[in-house]
Amino acid sequence: MPELRRGPITDRWVIIAPERAKRPTDYRSESPEKDDPAKCPFCPGHEHMTPPEIYRVHDGNGGWAVRVIPNKFPALTTYPELGREAVGGFFDRMHGVGAHEVVVETPDHERDLADLPLGHVIKVVETYVRRLQELMANTWHRYVLLFKNHGPQAGASLSHAHSQIIATPVTPRDVRDRLEAARDYYHKKERCIFCDMLLAELQMGKRIVEEVNNYVIWTPFDSRFPFEIHIYPQYHSHDFTQMTSEQIQGLARALKRALGKLKGLLGDPPFNFVLQNAPNPVPRPGRPDYWATLQYDYHWHIEIIPRLTQVAGFEWGTGFYINPMPPEDAAQYLREVEPADP
Amino acid sequence: MPELRRGPITDRWVIIAPERAKRPTDYRSESPEKDDPAKCPFCPGHEHMTPPEIYRVHDGNGGWAVRVIPNKFPALTTYPELGREAVGGFFDRMHGVGAHEVVVETPDHERDLADLPLGHVIKVVETYVRRLQELMANTWHRYVLLFKNHGPQAGASLSHAHSQIIATPVTPRDVRDRLEAARDYYHKKERCIFCDMLLAELQMGKRIVEEVNNYVIWTPFDSRFPFEIHIYPQYHSHDFTQMTSEQIQGLARALKRALGKLKGLLGDPPFNFVLQNAPNPVPRPGRPDYWATLQYDYHWHIEIIPRLTQVAGFEWGTGFYINPMPPEDAAQYLREVEPADP
Repeated sequence: MPELRRGPITDRWVIIAPERAKRPTDYRSESPEKDDPAKCPFCPGHEHMTPPEIYRVHDGNGGWAVRVIPNKFPALTTYPELGREAVGGFFDRMHGVGAHEVVVETPDHERDLADLPLGHVIKVVETYVRRLQELMANTWHRYVLLFKNHGPQAGASLSHAHSQIIATPVTPRDVRDRLEAARDYYHKKERCIFCDMLLAELQMGKRIVEEVNNYVIWTPFDSRFPFEIHIYPQYHSHDFTQMTSEQIQGLARALKRALGKLKGLLGDPPFNFVLQNAPNPVPRPGRPDYWATLQYDYHWHIEIIPRLTQVAGFEWGTGFYINPMPPEDAAQYLREVEPADP
Repeated sequence: MPELRRGPITDRWVIIAPERAKRPTDYRSESPEKDDPAKCPFCPGHEHMTPPEIYRVHDGNGGWAVRVIPNKFPALTTYPELGREAVGGFFDRMHGVGAHEVVVETPDHERDLADLPLGHVIKVVETYVRRLQELMANTWHRYVLLFKNHGPQAGASLSHAHSQIIATPVTPRDVRDRLEAARDYYHKKERCIFCDMLLAELQMGKRIVEEVNNYVIWTPFDSRFPFEIHIYPQYHSHDFTQMTSEQIQGLARALKRALGKLKGLLGDPPFNFVLQNAPNPVPRPGRPDYWATLQYDYHWHIEIIPRLTQVAGFEWGTGFYINPMPPEDAAQYLREVEPADP
């Protein structure tokens, strides 16, 4: 029978409904059709098709290995003032101040993170760290979000491998919720709620996919989506940008393996991944930001969300999710499968 | 330039990014392909293909006009106990106790709420009210949600017009958030926050689509999606099931007009609609439910969400939404268009 579940961090229930379950083969996806490389703005030789470059990793042969550019249609953009304003006495508005960048992960039009050599994935993760550091140095930016949309059903408008970074002038609601849970727990226990949750998961074992270089790949107890995968550093750290080079290499390996196992099991499913990092600690002139003072309570991690089911009226109406794939089964399938490109 | 917006009820920012906007014609959708009526479990003559009927509205000719059945693959189901339990010291689980029903809105395989005669839509709304009343009489049910998925991209697995009702044993997170906002506002003002917001909107006028029989059809200031439409009763009421028959008729007309205008403007787009009602007030044996005590602070309403954009990594990571269509423009388009079947 269906089961209701709730994890300790997010006060949100999930319905695990295995009666509706399918086998992994039923979820298998073909690779989405690739755009015409002749028209791809992310391919080498087409650099003039993008706004001026922000950052590049050189490939040692006069070309680039990773490239960062502004998003051509930015959701947020630079502006000299926030313009906070009340509208009609009731509503809040401000200018869309922030940043919106695109990380082109490789010059190769055909390959994605799961298929690239480990040495290249390390360069991509290093680029993430550098860009987040730079954007977090800006006091307008309260939160910097790194995410990837893969496949049209996951919101990717171009097929060439890329990820995105958005810096926002407010701390997002979902981040504040997690910070509040972590704060309250720390008040009681003087321990990190994320560390303790991870320890409980490692002791139970059923939802652990594997441990890779001090990172844990696992499927959460309250997974909202089939084959939802989280990657947590096993060491406590609130800030992704403070990784040592050894930790960066470990994460690159864990990320490549997690995405590779997803690909090995499900073909090439559409997915999103999202970095959950602490809010920007940079002190603002004037009033300090309350949420930034809670930064140390966070424990950064990456969430990978395959987009295999439709989010429908029930989810929009309640914040509840219905997941037909128990995470214990998902973890077992993922443990047993080899990554697409090991 | 993009703008950040937040409404008074939900502490959630939305990015309105008109640079990314398209015209309504770019969003136009063809009707989704209809399932084969010969295999449709919702067509007359196929009643044996569904679980036993719960409720029907007779058509006066020995047949039915509206029919309610249990969902064949229920997300929640009846069970003699909740089985609340801690798992691994950290996680909460309970049995998936509740109900999951399907309202077949018409025997006609081809037509949807927007195209059905007003008299028939009234029967559908009456059915919603009856079923909610019945499910709210059960003390296991803390919240009863009515919603509709239309089109495969909105999560509908069958094309024959239907809506769904799910009763949950917990008050959903999103409902609690709204109740908290309404409670805090009432403490300060002794007025309903929803009533006041509606008044502010009516005074500004820019986002009002039309007023129909004491209901207001409008596009919210912080619309998350292009052409998101809300229907609010202009009278204060926390509970949908307390509508008089005159109010039911008015709502049926407003719902038909709102969906008809959407269809007139956008073809036959995939959409969800969701009833936002107060939590179930039925006193539980033992401890009373805190959220139920806040029921009078609510103001029920219906949210219609066309599914024209993809929810991607940014939205999953933050709870932020990016909406390329300013609700003021959406309201103007919707004001000017005639409903598909007036």
